Amino acid sequence: MRSTEHWFPGRLTEMPAGECHDLMGSTSVGRVAFVDEDGPVVLPVNYVLDGATVLFSTSPANTIGRHLDSAAVAFEVDEFDDYTQSGWSVVVRGVATFVPYDELPRDALRPFPWADGRRPLIVRVTPSSVTGRRLLPG
Amino acid sequence: MRSTEHWFPGRLTEMPAGECHDLMGSTSVGRVAFVDEDGPVVLPVNYVLDGATVLFSTSPANTIGRHLDSAAVAFEVDEFDDYTQSGWSVVVRGVATFVPYDELPRDALRPFPWADGRRPLIVRVTPSSVTGRRLLPG
Repeated sequence: MRSTEHWFPGRLTEMPAGECHDLMGSTSVGRVAFVDEDGPVVLPVNYVLDGATVLFSTSPANTIGRHLDSAAVAFEVDEFDDYTQSGWSVVVRGVATFVPYDELPRDALRPFPWADGRRPLIVRVTPSSVTGRRLLPG
Repeated sequence: MRSTEHWFPGRLTEMPAGECHDLMGSTSVGRVAFVDEDGPVVLPVNYVLDGATVLFSTSPANTIGRHLDSAAVAFEVDEFDDYTQSGWSVVVRGVATFVPYDELPRDALRPFPWADGRRPLIVRVTPSSVTGRRLLPG
């Protein structure tokens, strides 16, 4: 479908907190936005929820690992359908901190990165706000 | 499939610029990351490509409109498959500027937001870097 062959515009609605949390628990890839030397950047990561917080793994050597200890971050998950031009998104804003070794959750509850490579560092995003929007089909 | 019932880890490879551009042309939702009063934030937008640049529509009154005139931004598109735990992502970093009325592309080439609401402001992201990674199934 070309962008000019579209449905009627969809309606955006805010989602309640419980729905945001449920939807965040339904997917396994999110995008973390942070600031490095060159400004804002956003990268996809595999994540899991730990209560109200988000956990993902990284390497201490990469750009996420070097910039996310006690840093302001945003974390986004979404799901959109091209055909119905509808979907939802949840945006978490908060602070990222490295999880100390003795506070790591047990293996089965840790984030499992799909990609190879060692990612021994687990980052926790503690939300200060969670907002979600649903785009209903037009 | 639970996160503990996984395939072998996939292999991450860098994608050449041409492949990044082709993949960016294949989807219609991306995420723009920028910095507001509270730090980094990331929001989904409908977009189109205009040559090597990214165009999306917004309202002058919303958070994107208020923070993206001549601002550093990142723009991300991706597609992942839960079952094969593979996919790709492209990250553009660059500068966002408002497109003056007399430089707007013709209607058919403008970004078409799926959501209702007036979004008369068109933002152009001019890349300073484009990087892409493909996660091959393990």
